[in-house]
Amino acid sequence: MTLVSTDLIASENARLAEHLRSDYAHLGEQLARQGVDIDSVKEKLKSFSVALPSWGVGTGGTRFARFPGAGEPRHVFDKLQDCGVVHQLARCTPGVSLHLPWDHCSDFGELRGHANALGLHFDAMNSNTFSDQRGQANSYKFGSLTHSEAGTRAQAVEHNLEVIAAGRELGSKALTVWIGDGSNFPGQQHFRRAFDRYVESAREIYAALPSDWRMFLEHKTCEPAFYATVIQDWGSSYLAASALGPKAQCLVDLGHHAPNVNIELIVARLIASGKLAGFHFNDSKYGDDDLDAGSVAPYRLFLVFNELVAAAYEQVQDFNPSYMLDQSHNVTDPIESLMISAAQVQRSYAQALLVDRQALDVAQQGNDAIAASQSLKAGFETDVTPILKQARLEQGGAIDLLACYRASGYRAQVAAERPAAMAGGGGIV
Amino acid sequence: MTLVSTDLIASENARLAEHLRSDYAHLGEQLARQGVDIDSVKEKLKSFSVALPSWGVGTGGTRFARFPGAGEPRHVFDKLQDCGVVHQLARCTPGVSLHLPWDHCSDFGELRGHANALGLHFDAMNSNTFSDQRGQANSYKFGSLTHSEAGTRAQAVEHNLEVIAAGRELGSKALTVWIGDGSNFPGQQHFRRAFDRYVESAREIYAALPSDWRMFLEHKTCEPAFYATVIQDWGSSYLAASALGPKAQCLVDLGHHAPNVNIELIVARLIASGKLAGFHFNDSKYGDDDLDAGSVAPYRLFLVFNELVAAAYEQVQDFNPSYMLDQSHNVTDPIESLMISAAQVQRSYAQALLVDRQALDVAQQGNDAIAASQSLKAGFETDVTPILKQARLEQGGAIDLLACYRASGYRAQVAAERPAAMAGGGGIV
Amino acid sequence: MTLVSTDLIASENARLAEHLRSDYAHLGEQLARQGVDIDSVKEKLKSFSVALPSWGVGTGGTRFARFPGAGEPRHVFDKLQDCGVVHQLARCTPGVSLHLPWDHCSDFGELRGHANALGLHFDAMNSNTFSDQRGQANSYKFGSLTHSEAGTRAQAVEHNLEVIAAGRELGSKALTVWIGDGSNFPGQQHFRRAFDRYVESAREIYAALPSDWRMFLEHKTCEPAFYATVIQDWGSSYLAASALGPKAQCLVDLGHHAPNVNIELIVARLIASGKLAGFHFNDSKYGDDDLDAGSVAPYRLFLVFNELVAAAYEQVQDFNPSYMLDQSHNVTDPIESLMISAAQVQRSYAQALLVDRQALDVAQQGNDAIAASQSLKAGFETDVTPILKQARLEQGGAIDLLACYRASGYRAQVAAERPAAMAGGGGIV
Amino acid sequence: MTLVSTDLIASENARLAEHLRSDYAHLGEQLARQGVDIDSVKEKLKSFSVALPSWGVGTGGTRFARFPGAGEPRHVFDKLQDCGVVHQLARCTPGVSLHLPWDHCSDFGELRGHANALGLHFDAMNSNTFSDQRGQANSYKFGSLTHSEAGTRAQAVEHNLEVIAAGRELGSKALTVWIGDGSNFPGQQHFRRAFDRYVESAREIYAALPSDWRMFLEHKTCEPAFYATVIQDWGSSYLAASALGPKAQCLVDLGHHAPNVNIELIVARLIASGKLAGFHFNDSKYGDDDLDAGSVAPYRLFLVFNELVAAAYEQVQDFNPSYMLDQSHNVTDPIESLMISAAQVQRSYAQALLVDRQALDVAQQGNDAIAASQSLKAGFETDVTPILKQARLEQGGAIDLLACYRASGYRAQVAAERPAAMAGGGGIV
Repeated sequence: MTLVSTDLIASENARLAEHLRSDYAHLGEQLARQGVDIDSVKEKLKSFSVALPSWGVGTGGTRFARFPGAGEPRHVFDKLQDCGVVHQLARCTPGVSLHLPWDHCSDFGELRGHANALGLHFDAMNSNTFSDQRGQANSYKFGSLTHSEAGTRAQAVEHNLEVIAAGRELGSKALTVWIGDGSNFPGQQHFRRAFDRYVESAREIYAALPSDWRMFLEHKTCEPAFYATVIQDWGSSYLAASALGPKAQCLVDLGHHAPNVNIELIVARLIASGKLAGFHFNDSKYGDDDLDAGSVAPYRLFLVFNELVAAAYEQVQDFNPSYMLDQSHNVTDPIESLMISAAQVQRSYAQALLVDRQALDVAQQGNDAIAASQSLKAGFETDVTPILKQARLEQGGAIDLLACYRASGYRAQVAAERPAAMAGGGGIV
Repeated sequence: MTLVSTDLIASENARLAEHLRSDYAHLGEQLARQGVDIDSVKEKLKSFSVALPSWGVGTGGTRFARFPGAGEPRHVFDKLQDCGVVHQLARCTPGVSLHLPWDHCSDFGELRGHANALGLHFDAMNSNTFSDQRGQANSYKFGSLTHSEAGTRAQAVEHNLEVIAAGRELGSKALTVWIGDGSNFPGQQHFRRAFDRYVESAREIYAALPSDWRMFLEHKTCEPAFYATVIQDWGSSYLAASALGPKAQCLVDLGHHAPNVNIELIVARLIASGKLAGFHFNDSKYGDDDLDAGSVAPYRLFLVFNELVAAAYEQVQDFNPSYMLDQSHNVTDPIESLMISAAQVQRSYAQALLVDRQALDVAQQGNDAIAASQSLKAGFETDVTPILKQARLEQGGAIDLLACYRASGYRAQVAAERPAAMAGGGGIV
Repeated sequence: MTLVSTDLIASENARLAEHLRSDYAHLGEQLARQGVDIDSVKEKLKSFSVALPSWGVGTGGTRFARFPGAGEPRHVFDKLQDCGVVHQLARCTPGVSLHLPWDHCSDFGELRGHANALGLHFDAMNSNTFSDQRGQANSYKFGSLTHSEAGTRAQAVEHNLEVIAAGRELGSKALTVWIGDGSNFPGQQHFRRAFDRYVESAREIYAALPSDWRMFLEHKTCEPAFYATVIQDWGSSYLAASALGPKAQCLVDLGHHAPNVNIELIVARLIASGKLAGFHFNDSKYGDDDLDAGSVAPYRLFLVFNELVAAAYEQVQDFNPSYMLDQSHNVTDPIESLMISAAQVQRSYAQALLVDRQALDVAQQGNDAIAASQSLKAGFETDVTPILKQARLEQGGAIDLLACYRASGYRAQVAAERPAAMAGGGGIV
Repeated sequence: MTLVSTDLIASENARLAEHLRSDYAHLGEQLARQGVDIDSVKEKLKSFSVALPSWGVGTGGTRFARFPGAGEPRHVFDKLQDCGVVHQLARCTPGVSLHLPWDHCSDFGELRGHANALGLHFDAMNSNTFSDQRGQANSYKFGSLTHSEAGTRAQAVEHNLEVIAAGRELGSKALTVWIGDGSNFPGQQHFRRAFDRYVESAREIYAALPSDWRMFLEHKTCEPAFYATVIQDWGSSYLAASALGPKAQCLVDLGHHAPNVNIELIVARLIASGKLAGFHFNDSKYGDDDLDAGSVAPYRLFLVFNELVAAAYEQVQDFNPSYMLDQSHNVTDPIESLMISAAQVQRSYAQALLVDRQALDVAQQGNDAIAASQSLKAGFETDVTPILKQARLEQGGAIDLLACYRASGYRAQVAAERPAAMAGGGGIV
């Protein structure tokens, strides 16, 4: 299978290795002055990973249009190949998160073997009850797990059970449930009854979870429902997860919040209550924009990681978040966006690791807002690029992700192998 | 004590009574066609009330300026007098909510008698740990119930206990706790520890609650803290109230939410979980603007009442919300704003009572979004003014609130009696 | 051609006429007390109309899914038929706004005759350079009128010229230009150059406008571009319209603004500067939700009409706005949504006509905020339904839009005639 | 006069100089690889300055409370002293912006000499017609420059003329006009007339401007008016500035926009139309929070500077923005906040200078969104701290601002010299 040639990676890296050595050494010296061992930061980074969404290697779109790119993946095997390239260069994205029925496959066992051969494994499984499939008995036009009719709810539950079954074959350990259910008009839906139906349906799914699985509930303030959604915020997500039991937790997508909302504070609340499932990383300026992680508001991403690193540092119980990218790549080569976004997530993690937690504690206890703020900024303002590059180099990845990928000619190759998709209508991401 | 002369009310009403009779009769006929008995709506309205905040009879302000009005109340007795006038004309505001230490008084028993003489009683008590008082040992600059130092927390708890004690003397049955605690910089406050300290402090207050009291926790997304607040949304409020126990519930102020948030949906969630304390009614366009209830977004207020009426109609357990106005009257005569706002709240309630709940159920079950939406609109678009006027008339109030109040000359009278306050700096509301 | 039988309309109306007579008479009496002649309000309403978007009779969708309804129009002739039904019952929607190439047609002259036979004419024409069409030489993936390459800009200009040509045949008098151009990443687009290219391209279109045409520039804060758009707000729209000349004006879509923005204030600014093109009416809670007009925030719609009625009352020069519905009917029968939305727009207009402008002027001049606010509310709180019904009755429409339409069985009829569309991906609206 | 001892600065710097030398050298080497000469960046930085607001050295507050700090300045001379300390250490804040009547002074000539002795001069003058002063004939409760009564408007104009007169004595070259005028209720103010009155009043002020002065119009979306403001956004500001003439320009305060608004895009529009007056720098999460510049959203500040540096690079005509901090220091020592904020502004400027504009142009022209985005990030992710430190060192400032200031004991000294202010009500910023 076509991936990037390891020779190319090696030669590209060779070109850059000397400067990296020098930069890494100088940064090491700077950090040492602050009592930080650069190698231990690097090692933490090497054990960190963020999953790829299988749909993320395709070009996304909006309700207005989708403008396909060259060499788009035609099926789940193509998608895995593209994910393989991302991981080959970035070395921090071994997990792939599938979406059924989009990634349907006649033999999940074969698929698992295929993924393993690429150094990949399967992260959380995603069900889809927000669009109708050909031949489906009941429509989700007016809801799925919360539909007013029992038959539609049963169908949606059944689909989730199938996704769990597929996930078991694939070695996944979690089911992510996001529904589009909600309403476009005041009065359309009975708020309390719809929520009760959600919990009732989710209980049936929960009951079918293998003992070592988790169920991730994903809230969203709006879209596709534009007056109200059923799991509209972390409060409703928490209520539902609590009603279900300990295996149910709340997933945070960075774009699923009302304007101005302090997301890192929500993360802290979910950590404290043992209900943080993990993240769908992306960035947003207006709503669920699904932009590349950290491309618009990198400090916000850092502040989220500051909460995560603090929780690990303080050994908060039951703290085990799952990380995934969830972006819509409308105007870029998806592989480029995924590599760079994964590195951006690593960057935030590395910067958060640099924060002097003892100094921060002292500043917080003494209400020294300036010193506390500067503690965080000291981490954020550090250019940790050499650590990221060194970690990639040591793991066989590319020092310069973009240059190496572009040099590989991978996109042109698959464009030749994969017939062009037609320009289409709205695109789903 | 100067109130409005009952003769004036009677003569003003006499002028308007005939038209009212005709309008009420015609509306009654229209409603009868829909199977609604206008008199029973009117009777429900007559048993509905919304409390007045003692601070609401003074002119509010912003951090930029406060522009005092004429005849501003000088102390709690003046405030009660003004509240008495509001209730005298509007007949739906018998409760007054005090704020300590602003309404401090050497003899709360005397105050209670004084209120009762005016037909008033005392609603929820409000503590204030968001500003410092002269002679206070510890400052709340960096927090009160969540302060990093135990001594400041203890002082804030102690103040709340005093407020409960005063409330017992006054016949109040609830304590509303709103704190300004939070942070202005990322890092300034340890999110999880601050919340834990909140719960710890609140537990001490909760323990001191009389058995028939409730404790209302009020969340707010920002201001005075502008990076993060401790009880930032209904989710955090719910977590805290749940940690405390059944007497603790979540208060909804209509202006304390992030932009675009669906408030009526939050109300539904709190109703379902038995945690709806009640409301601080006001309106907002941008943030916690504290505008007059329904002056900017009357349909939103109606949609809140639609949830309340539905809950009552369905006999949801433990449903017993408390209603209060909480507004900042910066550019109006506060008495006028309060009367009209109270009537606006009544209007929303009456409109919600007109919704055909059976038809709505059928539409919701059948996913007939248009019919469901029109069911609500049918209530909202009805001009229920004659019902409000008739209810006031039967209870001795004024048919035309504004005309009667203005005719009374009350403001000029108290302006003569009460020396003018100086134009000041920022105003607290 | 199948429309609603006039017999049915007559018999439905007969059933309701007596109550309408009584309600209209009583409302007339109430208004007379305020010095308002109900018949003259009704006559103004009868001369008011709002155009239908041809795409609005199809079911809309989101990027996640589109759930088709029964009997969806297959082409522009089906669309005109559905628009004909809306107008037949609602009697205030004679104009239809086409969208090319969606409504492409081999003989626009024939189409015009067909429309006229249905009592319809053609309102503003809409071009589409936000999605690619099969066989198109250059893609709009990275922009159209503002694309960095001249060839793509020329193609987009050329398309607009074709739309103008079609519009001339159809008798239209305006071109509406909305582009999706913008960027998803900081840095992707050079802000100033992109705007300059917009003006340059728009100048070529402007030059081709017939002398009695206008060009409507439509701004939008985001979507499909999620970091920045080229014509992001009314300020940019105004700059562009001013650069172009007097025939270019700024179109206001109620959903194309940042959160919390005061839309009626923008309307006032555009009126004062002679640059108000008109409106795309819809409603929104979160963003460009394209909900039914007035379904979520009816007072906001009223406040817009308050500005329009005031401008007419004060005889502001060059005040000649164009009105259109622009909504996405995702969960309703589009015909029902359009009829009810048109009536909602009428309602707002009628309510604004009831405002006592002289009393309002006095209150404004005297800074009597309460009286001014109550002047507007007096109009808004009036139930003008009888006026709307009477106007429809007199014009041959249906007193009860929904009941009559449902009784007609039109949807079932066309569902039988038009083969079902398949459930698809994202839907464009 | 007490400032920080130069000996202390020297000894503090000596402690840090060696590490700085090493860091500066390594960064220089890194930048040289990209073709950037570190010294020329440093020199540009040395010629950059940002003005201090006189009110910024006092502790700010909210409408709820103000919690004074120790040693607060009592009058304009104390304020200048504190500004002197900021500039002494930070070396980039020689300008001070006064606010009348807050900084009233019997002899502005003396004040000017006093400032010069501290190495300070006077930046833009600020008028205040958003609060009433003792003895003022007409109140600004209902507006100032836009008041419905001519007398109040004349008074507000007259005040601005006095501010210009004072500014002439002080050597200022600009007048900043921000008004609180607006409304809290729909209907309260006639939108078009209020704007016309604004322009009429502003014309009188404009006419009195010395020939080498500019007039900065500052827009704001809300607060203190909470329904509508007169100069609510850059569009209205542009209309007014255009009506006035070339000396009138639009000032951008980073916190005065609706949620989600793309501020850097507005900056680009104002640059292109020759109407960018300059900035009030601060940061915000919710509204006009007046947080420290770059403390919450540093990338946004960078993106603003990216537009500024691009404009200078492209030699846009009439591009001459004025820079000022405008923050509310509620929980910090104002001197610390100002020093660190000034350095943050410098940081953004330096990072923007590092962007490879040629590479960016190529990426933009080729619609290479990833490369374009990475061009900006390459600048932003560079830790430019050594450049800032070196620039300060060479200019006699402190390498480590916070450490040096805290070592100086300045705050304790002035706390002893200046009697404590009382805890007060709302605080104005």
